[in-house]
Amino acid sequence: MKKKAILAYSGGLDTSFCAVYLSRELDLEVHTVIVNSGGFTAEELAAIEKRAYELGSVKHEVIDVTARFYQDCLRYLLFGNVLKNDTYPLSVSAERMFQSLAIAEYARANEAEYIAHGSTGAGNDQVRFDVAFAVIAPKTEILTPIRDLKLSRQAEIEYLQKQGFEMSWEKAKYSINKGIWGTSVGGVETLTSHEALPETAYPSQLQRQDSERVEITFEKGEPVALNGEALEPVALIQKLNELGAAFAVGRDIHVGDTILGIKGRVGFEAPAPLILIKAHHLLEKHTSTRWQLLHKDYIANWYGTLLHEAQYLDPVMRDMEAFLASSQHHVSGKVFVNLEPYRFELLGIESKYDMMQSKVATYGEENNAWDSRDARGFIKIFGNQLKISASLHDEN
Amino acid sequence: MKKKAILAYSGGLDTSFCAVYLSRELDLEVHTVIVNSGGFTAEELAAIEKRAYELGSVKHEVIDVTARFYQDCLRYLLFGNVLKNDTYPLSVSAERMFQSLAIAEYARANEAEYIAHGSTGAGNDQVRFDVAFAVIAPKTEILTPIRDLKLSRQAEIEYLQKQGFEMSWEKAKYSINKGIWGTSVGGVETLTSHEALPETAYPSQLQRQDSERVEITFEKGEPVALNGEALEPVALIQKLNELGAAFAVGRDIHVGDTILGIKGRVGFEAPAPLILIKAHHLLEKHTSTRWQLLHKDYIANWYGTLLHEAQYLDPVMRDMEAFLASSQHHVSGKVFVNLEPYRFELLGIESKYDMMQSKVATYGEENNAWDSRDARGFIKIFGNQLKISASLHDEN
Amino acid sequence: MKKKAILAYSGGLDTSFCAVYLSRELDLEVHTVIVNSGGFTAEELAAIEKRAYELGSVKHEVIDVTARFYQDCLRYLLFGNVLKNDTYPLSVSAERMFQSLAIAEYARANEAEYIAHGSTGAGNDQVRFDVAFAVIAPKTEILTPIRDLKLSRQAEIEYLQKQGFEMSWEKAKYSINKGIWGTSVGGVETLTSHEALPETAYPSQLQRQDSERVEITFEKGEPVALNGEALEPVALIQKLNELGAAFAVGRDIHVGDTILGIKGRVGFEAPAPLILIKAHHLLEKHTSTRWQLLHKDYIANWYGTLLHEAQYLDPVMRDMEAFLASSQHHVSGKVFVNLEPYRFELLGIESKYDMMQSKVATYGEENNAWDSRDARGFIKIFGNQLKISASLHDEN
Amino acid sequence: MKKKAILAYSGGLDTSFCAVYLSRELDLEVHTVIVNSGGFTAEELAAIEKRAYELGSVKHEVIDVTARFYQDCLRYLLFGNVLKNDTYPLSVSAERMFQSLAIAEYARANEAEYIAHGSTGAGNDQVRFDVAFAVIAPKTEILTPIRDLKLSRQAEIEYLQKQGFEMSWEKAKYSINKGIWGTSVGGVETLTSHEALPETAYPSQLQRQDSERVEITFEKGEPVALNGEALEPVALIQKLNELGAAFAVGRDIHVGDTILGIKGRVGFEAPAPLILIKAHHLLEKHTSTRWQLLHKDYIANWYGTLLHEAQYLDPVMRDMEAFLASSQHHVSGKVFVNLEPYRFELLGIESKYDMMQSKVATYGEENNAWDSRDARGFIKIFGNQLKISASLHDEN
Repeated sequence: MKKKAILAYSGGLDTSFCAVYLSRELDLEVHTVIVNSGGFTAEELAAIEKRAYELGSVKHEVIDVTARFYQDCLRYLLFGNVLKNDTYPLSVSAERMFQSLAIAEYARANEAEYIAHGSTGAGNDQVRFDVAFAVIAPKTEILTPIRDLKLSRQAEIEYLQKQGFEMSWEKAKYSINKGIWGTSVGGVETLTSHEALPETAYPSQLQRQDSERVEITFEKGEPVALNGEALEPVALIQKLNELGAAFAVGRDIHVGDTILGIKGRVGFEAPAPLILIKAHHLLEKHTSTRWQLLHKDYIANWYGTLLHEAQYLDPVMRDMEAFLASSQHHVSGKVFVNLEPYRFELLGIESKYDMMQSKVATYGEENNAWDSRDARGFIKIFGNQLKISASLHDEN
Repeated sequence: MKKKAILAYSGGLDTSFCAVYLSRELDLEVHTVIVNSGGFTAEELAAIEKRAYELGSVKHEVIDVTARFYQDCLRYLLFGNVLKNDTYPLSVSAERMFQSLAIAEYARANEAEYIAHGSTGAGNDQVRFDVAFAVIAPKTEILTPIRDLKLSRQAEIEYLQKQGFEMSWEKAKYSINKGIWGTSVGGVETLTSHEALPETAYPSQLQRQDSERVEITFEKGEPVALNGEALEPVALIQKLNELGAAFAVGRDIHVGDTILGIKGRVGFEAPAPLILIKAHHLLEKHTSTRWQLLHKDYIANWYGTLLHEAQYLDPVMRDMEAFLASSQHHVSGKVFVNLEPYRFELLGIESKYDMMQSKVATYGEENNAWDSRDARGFIKIFGNQLKISASLHDEN
Repeated sequence: MKKKAILAYSGGLDTSFCAVYLSRELDLEVHTVIVNSGGFTAEELAAIEKRAYELGSVKHEVIDVTARFYQDCLRYLLFGNVLKNDTYPLSVSAERMFQSLAIAEYARANEAEYIAHGSTGAGNDQVRFDVAFAVIAPKTEILTPIRDLKLSRQAEIEYLQKQGFEMSWEKAKYSINKGIWGTSVGGVETLTSHEALPETAYPSQLQRQDSERVEITFEKGEPVALNGEALEPVALIQKLNELGAAFAVGRDIHVGDTILGIKGRVGFEAPAPLILIKAHHLLEKHTSTRWQLLHKDYIANWYGTLLHEAQYLDPVMRDMEAFLASSQHHVSGKVFVNLEPYRFELLGIESKYDMMQSKVATYGEENNAWDSRDARGFIKIFGNQLKISASLHDEN
Repeated sequence: MKKKAILAYSGGLDTSFCAVYLSRELDLEVHTVIVNSGGFTAEELAAIEKRAYELGSVKHEVIDVTARFYQDCLRYLLFGNVLKNDTYPLSVSAERMFQSLAIAEYARANEAEYIAHGSTGAGNDQVRFDVAFAVIAPKTEILTPIRDLKLSRQAEIEYLQKQGFEMSWEKAKYSINKGIWGTSVGGVETLTSHEALPETAYPSQLQRQDSERVEITFEKGEPVALNGEALEPVALIQKLNELGAAFAVGRDIHVGDTILGIKGRVGFEAPAPLILIKAHHLLEKHTSTRWQLLHKDYIANWYGTLLHEAQYLDPVMRDMEAFLASSQHHVSGKVFVNLEPYRFELLGIESKYDMMQSKVATYGEENNAWDSRDARGFIKIFGNQLKISASLHDEN
């Protein structure tokens, strides 16, 4: 009886090669699995399934993790206003982690002897796959034909042809990874350090020249309504992605460190993540204390960094999530945003927890919370340590 | 003989009131001092001087601290990419601190018995003034008529009229504080949490509908040339401010915590600071290591926070400056920026220290720095701790 | 009808003066309240109550917050291994906060018009009292006769005598504050920077010259058994305090910053806190991941700092507690400690979550988790960024 | 002509095997190098040199890096009060890094084709060697016979015997690594989690039952005199090591994370490091501001962590050193320490920069720096944010 291999299958050339290679060269029973974390349409999934079976998959499985992805990851990225290097919402980093976890769990549940992915040895994805597989399915052996064989695109196509698979594998000019939390775009420009991506490289094109005012309602840090219409967070993100894409907002280029220690550069468009993160952050500036804002930054920065670096399974991530969830108790209210071509503007917020509109004291106006004598005393004592240190350092 | 009082004089109603009040009610010899940190034109300074003498100033002094302000503060804000709450370049916070220091030093050098400022008891500026005065000129007594008397605008005008000063004190619709590192804008909208400032509230208006590509050269983190033209940093900032203002870039609204614990909201336009900080940050992403980027964030975040909170004289600020200066040794190169109406786009960089273009290893391509066997070993060991902790937590 | 004043009463001269002063000079109905957070015996409480009524208290209340103090504060200090400035378990800082909270809540529940404490204007305690009172009982006015009148000890005694209270108020050579989380000791030596406290200054004296091996069992970070005997945490702490005191362990001198910006110095003995914190920390080194240990340090350091600085009511403290509680899920096991005169030694631990004894890989021995080829690959990639940066920095 | 191999030679069995193996099996010209960072006596070095030549070394070199080790590393560890996991002064971690650097530089200067070390694939040392070699001598190939061959101790001895080398290789019961910044001790007990090391395992034995008062003078954070006698820091450390060892102070067991992700446990004795770090820290508590102490902790914690993890060559380490050096400008004065059997006590300090003895304000006494009205005002405003947030959270 053949041994079972679970293959993370995307429908592309590399994993199609893997499907055939594992089955014909390694004599394995190949089960293909694709994990949808919000980036695939039903049509795309059907086409991929069809191809999987054509290539000899014994069983093809579609696992939808979108809701879980939001619940166990995206909302924490939102709570933390996480933008890696102040730019990138971790679109692919986060998504690939959750795809890896789902596949690893599937392999363990199905007692597969092997688990395979199609990543090369050059980037981050192999780390996310390998780590998730090894931690969650430690008894399963990892197979990585693409990484090990290092075949050229042409060689892979020829191998498939020799095996009788005559499919068309035209190479897109830009390599695209579409996901609910952002779509990445790589091309010849992103291999340089000085060239921007042309407009045409982005999957979405500017459709609107006007502007639109949007109202986002948050409840304990989570987006729950758009323009007054209550929506599940996942649906809200998808709707906001469409809306923002029409204005071509949320585009940028991320330059960052891979887990392997080298620098990489990638374009992305992520309308909803950018709008939500900035809107959420503004709401927090009104509803969170100075100390919360300061320490949330520390925690969130590390949460994003460790997620990017395939450390999602470290227990410290659960500790950070506990901190972030706690910090959201009063992050409720509405945020008003103006969408314009290529940009958006935060107009303001409204919240019953708005510390700026408290009755205790109000900014910029005379108030009864303290008087000039209090202020003088406050500053006198507030400056004590500076006075002491200056007096000692001066006289010596 | 009358005792000497140094008054921080701005030419506005509050400090004009102070000038007369100190001299006529407290019988002091009033010396007016204005500190220019890059926000005043020669004409404005001349008009202020004229008014100071009209109001009875015995001596009026203009102290220009622009070069020192850049050298001792702004360049560190740039090294640290400091944007308070991810938004505000600390325009007024930084400037007021250096004005306070200059006045305190002047008072000490001139052995004044009194030192006065015109801030109210409601905001941050009084803290900056009081702390600087107390630390640098500890033997000088601080006078704050505006904070203590809490007169209405009308009462101040009437007092001046009674004293024979018939000046016009029309109140601008928006309160503006112009500086080299940004101009703040306050108005009825900024007292709310939900309203944005109208376009007309900003001192600069959009003048250009086209786009312009700009090239900024950095040397050890400092901007040294604009479009290939070598410029002193101060001159470069001023030129870039003008250029950016024509595109209306660098505008936003800052919501933050005052030193007194309440929340405040203020509009600003700061074209050069925003462009320079984002350009500089991009250059750092290419030239600094992962650890530098991570720890610089921590240091810079605190540097900005403590500067905002009037702690510039704490020795820890010197320690942080040492860190920041050290971190800039290889932050040299060119950054390409595209200016558009209301926004700018970072195109890319060029640097001999660009870690992305190193010969050792290159992103996204097959390389000779390591092979698939190395990658497999790396990830295996990289995942050790996760494997260990998962194995222990699972079985229990 | 007289207005009601709640007085935080300790039985000492200052608060006894307050009791009489509030009643006779301010014509208030004085209710005395003492909060026991584990530092008072039943006899001490009875004596204090007797004195309170003698001095004219209309109602004397004893509020025991020990269990709550442990639940809402001490266990987090233990989870975080909090030693301020690496030395001080925050004995008084923590206790005074919880006493202040209990009195403020009592005043609010009893709708008192006034709330009073006997702290001077020199130290931290006034801040804890004032802040707790103002936040929790914002409608109640704060009275602070000791801070305002600044009477000498002798003047207070004379006042009490004139009012007919002939009590003996001998001044102890050392000022002692006894609590479950440590006893503070102040004296002439602690006002200097160079003198240590004499042995006799400490309340407990060395009683044993032998050594004793102790076994402490932790369950999710909390101490639950001593030498195999299951105990409530509060009882366990008290028992361990007695045991440790006999060995005179847990003594030291804390030098730190007060909230008012000046430095202070105080001796303390805190046997149980020191033993528990060090034992707990050792257990964590075995059961927590590297990332947990690193980030817990950051959180715990700030948790202790903010608690010390009277910020217990800031919501960020709840966020940090959520982090700390989450981090303890696997901090279970036994710690073995040897008590000796003046010191204790951590012998080791035993835990089913001990990451050092995992089957996945074992330290110091050949193992099957990876081979030399893996190690070589790991280090090659691990060194990538250093190689890249060195190559660029060298050649220029 | 034979190719040149530089071997990091320690005189032990593993590197002796390497010396012969490289020369006889790989036909290389073996140059042995030993780096003394303060742990070897002249006699030991002579014996090792003799053995190196017996084993066929073409050239044996002794490189003394002690002064550089202090200057470029140890003083920063002292500035930062670095104790890994609050326990371990990084004795071996730091030393091995500097040995690796010296050997790598020697290999580069001598244009060796190969560079070899005798570490296994199980621990941290291989990482320090490999990384230093690859970064500093990138053209040199790394050879690691011990890691690759995984021979048993017996097999190595037999190989040497077959090659004609009849040396005695008795295995010590405890594996000792002696260095100026501490001596590590490994044995059967340190492989468990629950057993302490017996007294006899430590190289130094208790020699004194009395106590001795020691006075250490620091100048800008560096130790410059012992009991009033001016000494070079290296000489002072060595003298203090001897003195402390007689009292058996500075012993403990470190449990920590290796670079490879597994936990390890090792005993150590490090009298001078422990005494100096604790004395230095106390001096800082008196002479540094609250903000310096807080942020130094962050920097120092990471400096130690990254040093431990072989990241010494990352430029961020230079940035941190700049911070740490800056923080020491006023860390000057004397610290008084009492040595007792198995422990030491910090008595106090004396410094012209002692912020506790400033004339501006003094702890625990009435002072003129502020009055009760100031204190009341300070606390009122200090509590603003808590009052605001509580008022909003309560009413909802």
